[in-house]
Amino acid sequence: MTRIRMVVEYEGTNYVGWQLQENGVSVQQKLNEALYAVTGEAIRVHGSGRTDSGVHARAQVAHFDTAARMPADKFAFALNSHLPRDIRVLYSGTAEPDFHARFSVTQKSYRYTVQTGPHARVSTRTTALHVHTPLDLAALREAAQEALGEHDFAAFMAAGGAVETTVRRILASDWSKDGPYLHYDVTGTGFLYNMVRILVGTMLEIGAGKRAPGAIARAIAGGRREDGGPTAPAQGLCLMRVRYPDFDTEAVLGAL
Amino acid sequence: MTRIRMVVEYEGTNYVGWQLQENGVSVQQKLNEALYAVTGEAIRVHGSGRTDSGVHARAQVAHFDTAARMPADKFAFALNSHLPRDIRVLYSGTAEPDFHARFSVTQKSYRYTVQTGPHARVSTRTTALHVHTPLDLAALREAAQEALGEHDFAAFMAAGGAVETTVRRILASDWSKDGPYLHYDVTGTGFLYNMVRILVGTMLEIGAGKRAPGAIARAIAGGRREDGGPTAPAQGLCLMRVRYPDFDTEAVLGAL
Repeated sequence: MTRIRMVVEYEGTNYVGWQLQENGVSVQQKLNEALYAVTGEAIRVHGSGRTDSGVHARAQVAHFDTAARMPADKFAFALNSHLPRDIRVLYSGTAEPDFHARFSVTQKSYRYTVQTGPHARVSTRTTALHVHTPLDLAALREAAQEALGEHDFAAFMAAGGAVETTVRRILASDWSKDGPYLHYDVTGTGFLYNMVRILVGTMLEIGAGKRAPGAIARAIAGGRREDGGPTAPAQGLCLMRVRYPDFDTEAVLGAL
Repeated sequence: MTRIRMVVEYEGTNYVGWQLQENGVSVQQKLNEALYAVTGEAIRVHGSGRTDSGVHARAQVAHFDTAARMPADKFAFALNSHLPRDIRVLYSGTAEPDFHARFSVTQKSYRYTVQTGPHARVSTRTTALHVHTPLDLAALREAAQEALGEHDFAAFMAAGGAVETTVRRILASDWSKDGPYLHYDVTGTGFLYNMVRILVGTMLEIGAGKRAPGAIARAIAGGRREDGGPTAPAQGLCLMRVRYPDFDTEAVLGAL
């Protein structure tokens, strides 16, 4: 058996999310089906983590084991010929047998994109959240700073998340502006269920003046879900980068 | 009657093009229908020019006349509530009675986007042409220079174009690189039918080494359609900007 790891791009709009679900088609299911078509094996791919319905990935990482004797880099081409156009394997290569797409992760980066202005742009209608009310960029940036470092993010976890600890370490957290777009870029060693979307939902209320400055720090201190704000819609969120001790999706994409 | 002009963004993927057609749904038809829903008037909008089936517009300009007593800037909001999400009116305002979206144009800019690399990216699957063979950027840039200035572009006009003259003036013509993307940006006082796509199709053959350097200049000199290369697929092309003596879509978008 050979362990293969892949970098996968997808638009989440038409899927119930990364993870296999009874109630609809998932990205994982499409990959499993493509692997069956290519290898004849009933293979289950393992992702770096689930993404919710409607959430996108610029660079998701997944691994699988196969007995198929195919050069590792050819899996990307073979799988793509069986995948819909909104899912692409951008890279495939061999990994050490102890590599695990989920358990070996060291850092993940997400971007949440907000489009400001009176009208929703066509080009980002499925990949950005349109907000027509004015947002204060300085207030957003200040709020983002409060998430930096190691904190108990219990206030920023959706009900249903079952984890040993709600402490997470955030290494980068900031907003930037590019024309009508506001991007929230966050990097951490790991995230709780819906954590980025609840952080964004809370920060957007701060940016709109509906919630006082300092609300992120207070919610971290309070530690109850009701101390955080609403969950921002899925469509603005994108998994941008996953890092491992021996693998970085950004290096892979840069070499394509 | 008031003359209203609009800036319209659309993704051309699901339309037969800008212009009304018997064989399918056009962007113009959708705008006419939305105007009827808003005003009760049978209004025909006039665009700056047609775009082909599958071609996109970041900033198309159109005008119409109406007896409706609605503040001019409200048409954008009213029309958008009747338009599909892949067509958006980004701006509406009054124009002088002698303004004409097509006849008053002074400059138009198009961008053609090519995505290089082994696999087609999801995020640009409908807005870029995927080319997996290597392309020589220096050769593309050199070829683009040959289109600059005033020339007879008869070799770059699709059959069926009926025009008084095939002489056109190109003010800017260059390729640039952004990661895996190659962009051809061209600005002119006007373009022949399919001219940009035939220019791109010819340049891509030069960039791939299938056609010798100097082929653009030779085709201009030859003047027959067979001197030019193939017509590049529609999906990579986007109308980026339209300028008039008193109106510039870039200024409008910049103020949103």
